[in-house]
Amino acid sequence: MTYSAPLKDMLFAMEHLAQIDQVAQLPGFEEAGLETAQAVLEECAKLCEGVVAPLNLPGDVAPSSLKDGVVTTTAGFKQAFRQYAEGGWQGLQHPQDFGGQGLPKTIGAACVEMLNSANLSFALCPLLTDGAIEALLTAGSDELKATYLEKLVTGEWTGTMNLTEPQAGSDLALVRTKADPQPDGSYKVFGTKIFITYGEHDMAENIVHLVLARVAGAPEGVKGISLFVVPKFLVNKDGSLGARNDVHCVSIEHKMGIKASPTAVLQYGDNGGAIGYLVGEENRGLEYMFIMMNAARYAVGVQGIAVAERSYQHAVAYARERVQSRPVDGSVKASATIIHHPDVRRMLMTMRAYTEGCRAMAATAAAAYDASHHHADAQVREANAAFYEFMVPLVKGYSTEMSLEVTSLGVQVHGGMGFIEETGAAQYYRDAKILTIYEGTTAIQANDLVGRKTARDGGQTALAIAGQIEKTEAELAASGTPEALAVARQLAAARQAFVEAVHFVSGQAKAEPNAVYAGSVPYLMLAGNLVAGWQMGRALLVAEQLLHKGQDEAFLRAKIATARFYAEHILVKAAGLRDAIVHGAGSVMALPMDAF
Amino acid sequence: MTYSAPLKDMLFAMEHLAQIDQVAQLPGFEEAGLETAQAVLEECAKLCEGVVAPLNLPGDVAPSSLKDGVVTTTAGFKQAFRQYAEGGWQGLQHPQDFGGQGLPKTIGAACVEMLNSANLSFALCPLLTDGAIEALLTAGSDELKATYLEKLVTGEWTGTMNLTEPQAGSDLALVRTKADPQPDGSYKVFGTKIFITYGEHDMAENIVHLVLARVAGAPEGVKGISLFVVPKFLVNKDGSLGARNDVHCVSIEHKMGIKASPTAVLQYGDNGGAIGYLVGEENRGLEYMFIMMNAARYAVGVQGIAVAERSYQHAVAYARERVQSRPVDGSVKASATIIHHPDVRRMLMTMRAYTEGCRAMAATAAAAYDASHHHADAQVREANAAFYEFMVPLVKGYSTEMSLEVTSLGVQVHGGMGFIEETGAAQYYRDAKILTIYEGTTAIQANDLVGRKTARDGGQTALAIAGQIEKTEAELAASGTPEALAVARQLAAARQAFVEAVHFVSGQAKAEPNAVYAGSVPYLMLAGNLVAGWQMGRALLVAEQLLHKGQDEAFLRAKIATARFYAEHILVKAAGLRDAIVHGAGSVMALPMDAF
Repeated sequence: MTYSAPLKDMLFAMEHLAQIDQVAQLPGFEEAGLETAQAVLEECAKLCEGVVAPLNLPGDVAPSSLKDGVVTTTAGFKQAFRQYAEGGWQGLQHPQDFGGQGLPKTIGAACVEMLNSANLSFALCPLLTDGAIEALLTAGSDELKATYLEKLVTGEWTGTMNLTEPQAGSDLALVRTKADPQPDGSYKVFGTKIFITYGEHDMAENIVHLVLARVAGAPEGVKGISLFVVPKFLVNKDGSLGARNDVHCVSIEHKMGIKASPTAVLQYGDNGGAIGYLVGEENRGLEYMFIMMNAARYAVGVQGIAVAERSYQHAVAYARERVQSRPVDGSVKASATIIHHPDVRRMLMTMRAYTEGCRAMAATAAAAYDASHHHADAQVREANAAFYEFMVPLVKGYSTEMSLEVTSLGVQVHGGMGFIEETGAAQYYRDAKILTIYEGTTAIQANDLVGRKTARDGGQTALAIAGQIEKTEAELAASGTPEALAVARQLAAARQAFVEAVHFVSGQAKAEPNAVYAGSVPYLMLAGNLVAGWQMGRALLVAEQLLHKGQDEAFLRAKIATARFYAEHILVKAAGLRDAIVHGAGSVMALPMDAF
Repeated sequence: MTYSAPLKDMLFAMEHLAQIDQVAQLPGFEEAGLETAQAVLEECAKLCEGVVAPLNLPGDVAPSSLKDGVVTTTAGFKQAFRQYAEGGWQGLQHPQDFGGQGLPKTIGAACVEMLNSANLSFALCPLLTDGAIEALLTAGSDELKATYLEKLVTGEWTGTMNLTEPQAGSDLALVRTKADPQPDGSYKVFGTKIFITYGEHDMAENIVHLVLARVAGAPEGVKGISLFVVPKFLVNKDGSLGARNDVHCVSIEHKMGIKASPTAVLQYGDNGGAIGYLVGEENRGLEYMFIMMNAARYAVGVQGIAVAERSYQHAVAYARERVQSRPVDGSVKASATIIHHPDVRRMLMTMRAYTEGCRAMAATAAAAYDASHHHADAQVREANAAFYEFMVPLVKGYSTEMSLEVTSLGVQVHGGMGFIEETGAAQYYRDAKILTIYEGTTAIQANDLVGRKTARDGGQTALAIAGQIEKTEAELAASGTPEALAVARQLAAARQAFVEAVHFVSGQAKAEPNAVYAGSVPYLMLAGNLVAGWQMGRALLVAEQLLHKGQDEAFLRAKIATARFYAEHILVKAAGLRDAIVHGAGSVMALPMDAF
């Protein structure tokens, strides 16, 4: 049940695919080179492996509980969160001005992965706090920043995102929570918010809720939504905690997974109104919310990679140990460990290839994020922003969808033992299922990819990526090894399938919206599959070059084998996805609604 | 949370695909025509919908519990099982000589589906009892038959299958439980069996364990295994219950799903030896066990279809009710029920198409089973047996693998509510995961398909099926409607992919076993995908013909739309699977064992 952080693979992706030496040339990141990354990752691994990972199973067995409005987290969580905060981990990617370390996302993302591999439920508290910090940094007044940011960045307090209401899930136009302006400039907030992760808990002194609500007289729909800070405890002028605010946890959900993370129903204003403070301007809440959300979407994608890695490690350990049946090739004349059996190998390779592919994709996206914010040249910033924006739905949608398949295989490798809760493999399977849902379902990611990220610019960003992939194909062809050629062949086929899909999507989005959106999720899966496969192709090229230099042979040969597996077993799905998108739209909507 | 048996679709498959009028011409099944089927199914639906389905969620919330060696099942299970037994349902497919109704599998399979849709956990007790009955019918002495069969067939007693031991899961060569011959012809059984479904419970007076064990001096491995009957209570000469036998439940498992079904660890012989009776001859246990197992494998496949159907119905109900977001085509100018959204439709169609396709596949397999046992002509029996044997791993493997995808989509349609246990969608997802594991994992099914069912006859049966599919393609082409042509095109592509895979598998199985078995699960998925798609193609042809006759238009048009969806969204995966099988074998085993 132990977790061992895959530092070698993370640093490989960071050095050779995300090219951290270039990140370290960005203004403000001068000290964020490979050496820093290595030191940070090693420290982070110690905390995650030693302190946080051992709390994963206990959190599932004895989840957070609610009594008289107070949530008690699993034994050990509070202390572990103190260690996390005191180690400065909450502030890793946040500005030094507010007590953070100001490191790039390229490094931060790897730490997020480790924390989530160690314990998805635990890691959600920092994840949501990151979102609150982002929102305040972007749109908060100086006063709000002064009051809240340092406490959040240092992990003394935590943050939440309050979007969902019973009638308003994906559809924020339906938000009904209201905010009444008060003479002193504050607001009184009234309403019910559901699905609030860490909406109430005992791990920090105060909780800073970021809440979407409507001011009286605001326009209908999403254009009338504003964002408010509503602290659990009001904050006195001197920064000390004041009165308890009128926001209360009335219940927590009984969930299939991530049980240790309390999912609260929060009631605002039952006793006169919860005092809230406007973030930015009225009616621009959705815009600010998207800032939090984009950060959170990327992080949820990393959660997918994280749980896939943990599930993989668990399965490998079992496959090395469990003795069952003779190998089909006669290589062992008695029952052997199941890792000898081809289908077990196929399952483990599938898990490994998906995980490494998505990790590489997320790493390159993170480097683009850093460049989009820090590069001196505006054009370079813009190009990186376009790439990153295209990547966010892929990192979120594809990495989480693949995590369902990977954690399912993780159970399967264990056979009957996988279905027994004590084994631990089932927890990853149950935990992972939320990842394709929260922070925007896969369909929401896919709509974003189709609408804002592909159709809006006429497929330009998508086709530019296809062009980059073609260059990688040429490099693979030039290498000429059997592995490189095999990957080049499948990459070319998948890229051509993607280009056809891009033309269909960008060409038909306006004229035939139902036809295009009928294929939106397959389009996301095709794009994600291709981009992760592309990164595996790049990784193979790097590995071949380093092999010539005589570096870490076992690791590099494994990378080459995994890249080839990805191409021959995962990239090969691309053509079927293209067919479903381009030729299958009609049959999606053919059945009348009442015929289901 | 209600379940409504899909009688129309079941009877359509039975009448037009399984061709029950031909089954009713088999000796012994003269009264088993469509009218009988309809009457039986309607009665069965009443019981399943009204009595068994409402116990599904309670069984998950308050599972079976163990105290002092006694298992108490969920409140209501005992009474429901009495109703089930008194209605004669346990004996539906069993011989009239022993109190059964002697109906064909073609009818019985639909009843098994309904019971499992209603409640997977509940249905496992009859499912295992069926296996015990099959084993005794095939190999039991007249005395054993006289003592046990009628009680099992009438549901007064229940049966179990005791194969697994801690070290012996898929690998029965490792069974250690021993059986010592006694002077009176009985045996004393000593050992530990695990994962025994309904190994202990309070729903019947007696439990008849069918137990694999070794007699002293038996050959090593699977050739030294014998099968024994070990009743919980010994049976007196007059049929009354005698002393408690020395078999005891020492624990039950804490599982991810099917929680209401007690999964027992049974200890045999701790107090002097459990008295057992040999079934058939010594050392032929594995052979008899395969009889039970084949019946159980087919039934587990039907469980996959059943849970998929239930999950689909649950998702459709939610999609019709939940209001969220405007339709992308502007057809509604406000937030609409989510069934308006293309991706929700895609998910529901995927669930529907998989379920109908696998139901059709299982129905045709059941008809072949009936003909293989009852046809007057030995050659016809043999041909049907070969077809059925080929179908068993597909029904088991493919229908259960698809049930994982379908129940995952079922959660996804519900969004955040799907992750909350009270909604009920999560239960199907958790329950389904055992189906790809027990009664032989998907890999075990795939090895059977590759080895015994494809390579052994040089691909003859597989290619004969491909030939039949080609005929259906020609009929679809002859129909000439856009739907028929679309299905014909994808069916042809998938069939060609399958034929290539068959040649690879049958050609290389001996020379390159690792390469062939590396693709065994993809080969199973390709074959299952194709055969279910073929049946959807046949269904489309029938639907078109019936439409001309002016029958039930809504149902028939839905069948045509679903068949086309299957072809354009599911059959299109075939080529990718072929590529993985034929070209991807090398990369499965390329990574050395110690590099994982």
